Amino acid sequence: MAQAYFKNNKHEQTAVFDYYFRKNPFDGGYTIFAGLEDLLQKLKTLKFSQEDINFLKTQQFPNDFLNYLQQFRFRGKIFSAMEGDVVFPNRPILRVEATLFEAQLIETIVLNLLNFQSLIATKACRMRWIAGNRSLLDFGLRRAQGPGGYFASRAAFIGGFNGTSNVIAGEDFNIPISGTMAHSYIQSYDDELEAFRDFALQLPKKCVLLVDTYNTLKSGIPNAIIVAKEMEARGEQLYAIRLDSGDLAYFAKKSRKLLDAAGLKYVKIAASNQLDEYVIKSLQEQDAPIDIYGVGTNLVIGKPNGALDGVYKLAFSNGKPRIKISENLLKITLPHAKQVYRVMTDEDTWIGADAIGLSTENHIETIHHPFDPFKQMDIGNLKQEALLNEVMGDGEIKIKLRTLSEIAEYSRQRFAQLPLEYKRFYNPHQYKIGISTMLKLEQETLIKSHKI
Amino acid sequence: MAQAYFKNNKHEQTAVFDYYFRKNPFDGGYTIFAGLEDLLQKLKTLKFSQEDINFLKTQQFPNDFLNYLQQFRFRGKIFSAMEGDVVFPNRPILRVEATLFEAQLIETIVLNLLNFQSLIATKACRMRWIAGNRSLLDFGLRRAQGPGGYFASRAAFIGGFNGTSNVIAGEDFNIPISGTMAHSYIQSYDDELEAFRDFALQLPKKCVLLVDTYNTLKSGIPNAIIVAKEMEARGEQLYAIRLDSGDLAYFAKKSRKLLDAAGLKYVKIAASNQLDEYVIKSLQEQDAPIDIYGVGTNLVIGKPNGALDGVYKLAFSNGKPRIKISENLLKITLPHAKQVYRVMTDEDTWIGADAIGLSTENHIETIHHPFDPFKQMDIGNLKQEALLNEVMGDGEIKIKLRTLSEIAEYSRQRFAQLPLEYKRFYNPHQYKIGISTMLKLEQETLIKSHKI
Repeated sequence: MAQAYFKNNKHEQTAVFDYYFRKNPFDGGYTIFAGLEDLLQKLKTLKFSQEDINFLKTQQFPNDFLNYLQQFRFRGKIFSAMEGDVVFPNRPILRVEATLFEAQLIETIVLNLLNFQSLIATKACRMRWIAGNRSLLDFGLRRAQGPGGYFASRAAFIGGFNGTSNVIAGEDFNIPISGTMAHSYIQSYDDELEAFRDFALQLPKKCVLLVDTYNTLKSGIPNAIIVAKEMEARGEQLYAIRLDSGDLAYFAKKSRKLLDAAGLKYVKIAASNQLDEYVIKSLQEQDAPIDIYGVGTNLVIGKPNGALDGVYKLAFSNGKPRIKISENLLKITLPHAKQVYRVMTDEDTWIGADAIGLSTENHIETIHHPFDPFKQMDIGNLKQEALLNEVMGDGEIKIKLRTLSEIAEYSRQRFAQLPLEYKRFYNPHQYKIGISTMLKLEQETLIKSHKI
Repeated sequence: MAQAYFKNNKHEQTAVFDYYFRKNPFDGGYTIFAGLEDLLQKLKTLKFSQEDINFLKTQQFPNDFLNYLQQFRFRGKIFSAMEGDVVFPNRPILRVEATLFEAQLIETIVLNLLNFQSLIATKACRMRWIAGNRSLLDFGLRRAQGPGGYFASRAAFIGGFNGTSNVIAGEDFNIPISGTMAHSYIQSYDDELEAFRDFALQLPKKCVLLVDTYNTLKSGIPNAIIVAKEMEARGEQLYAIRLDSGDLAYFAKKSRKLLDAAGLKYVKIAASNQLDEYVIKSLQEQDAPIDIYGVGTNLVIGKPNGALDGVYKLAFSNGKPRIKISENLLKITLPHAKQVYRVMTDEDTWIGADAIGLSTENHIETIHHPFDPFKQMDIGNLKQEALLNEVMGDGEIKIKLRTLSEIAEYSRQRFAQLPLEYKRFYNPHQYKIGISTMLKLEQETLIKSHKI
């Protein structure tokens, strides 16, 4: 496609593309936007290596095109929501303004990075919301989709996780790392007590003992109590025991009683095994005394969706607005470079609608339902926060990159502004979309011009 | 955990770990084993960089342990099924024999690479099986789980896909690359016909025209026919048209009629849009005249499972067999270093059971149901093919690495040997497992020794 643009001398026409998705994941009421700062860093240095060019030569691409690829750098502009923001379907999250060639070439990297990290940050946020102040740890790398697990750990931290067992992600993104023993560690000893004892001796700080290798209540917990008492005698404290099988609510309650009866109220209970937001919700509804949740597969693969359905659509090129028609009204694209506004009261309460206007509009008076001609709303006297800000210009990053903790904290603050009815798991309230009068007229004109 | 092994001087004890999974993905009757040769190459060069060591130093790991990490190389043995083989749940697919330290350190990389690639190769194989000789193309990178898409393209080719739009995977793994135009290409022109015409002029070979941007039957197909006729006048042939929305069966039939009526019987029909094995099956049952399927999201994320539930369990260490007990009988592990045999007739017909014995057994006379004491079967006079072969020894790769095409061809041959009743999508026949008399006795003895 890039070759066709190049050969037909369209490659340097200016173009505007929108990144957005059509449906919140997990049948939820919101999405946490993640992956942006990674994307900007990738785009800043994106180029074709000599090896790449040599490979493409073997694929019969012509020399003049390959020469053009060789000098390719992304020099366009990007306007985007901030990473960590709470975002919604069917409105631009990110807008690319660049040559047709540049904008098209980065399509896959934009979609790949933003779709996946936003999916996982959203999954993590759902668990954080239900887990309250309890600790959430990412244990997912072994079941992750290959190296996707690396970015899953990053996104999970943005969504509200406290740490990860993924050491390389911890190293690169400065996420607290946190591990525990496996059953194999216990099995490698002839005796569970000896295994616990040796572990506690060597790792007295934040020592977590896995108690379900042979029999949780008859062996694991009694042995953990012996070791905890030995630690007390050395002036140390056992940090936690971990349950990884069976009925977690039942075992947590029984374990808590045994620990408390032994005077070990301070020993925490960690639980793992196929957790997700629904299991955590159920455990909490049963008052299961669990302090730490270790979450694996369901977090890092974003189960059950597995993908955010983000798309990247042309809105403007060569001086003209562009549209894609569809029999499905919601799939008809919005033409022109656009801005998105979060509409709120003077007290910063979100009213539950984002307004989409032309990027040349500064304030929107009236928003219209995207296709129901009888629905409209005046928002002229409400506060309107522009969500898409210039984050890249001339291929340079235009914002101060933040630490992952800063992004996570920003996300936490924004999520706190989202009204409760959008947060519930079952049948959440639908956050609305409205388009400005000018945008509506532009879209209608274009649709008519393509009617056959 | 590695630190505890090291500090308690257990790190150089010999250990045996099994990699296996508990359930075929997609409620299917088999799994295609993939990722092995990637894994071997990673293990051969695995080490801690100075940067890694410096990071771990900041995490309060002691110096003697870090020095040990710094000189770490994997020098163990690996016995494994061949990559591309058809494998089943609850029997070892791969066995690691190494020091406890080495074997434990590679756990995550073993699980991460094998779980994901096996999941995707299996998904691809299911589509290949139902698609017959029709072309299957991987279009999934933009919805993949970050860089996981790279390995998804590799695994999809093993499972039977013909090509990928993932250029970097194509370059690195020698997979045929294949692309098509996006709606944005058409939209960037004022006129669909002009867009088609320019594309065909520049890319006459394997030219595929996307016909659904405005109106498939009234605009896309008529314009494609005009361009196809212009190509004929230049001595060229339009390769295909592509449908990407609407009812694919309906549009494929209508499009075929229009193309045929224009004398363009040779123009193929490609289809994409949320395809998976069930949609392909349905399209074929409706006789939809589709020649090429472009499959994205559902392939590369292995929907709906998203993960293969592979585990890595200790079976032997420090001279003794090891076991993990569970209330769930199927979750009780099998102790000792083991070999797995595919049982077949003299005509190489698989009888539908794999036999697991101790690695020291050469031929198994009788197999027993893993926990039903009344079920057993004599297999002494049947052919038994050992599945686990030494693929790594002293940290060196012991097999001739194959091209991806060779692995895919091997997989195709093995899959052809699998009887039909294991291949069907709904309620497939269950491939059996049997354990040898010696292994059964060893397991029983160990369970008794851990009874509390």
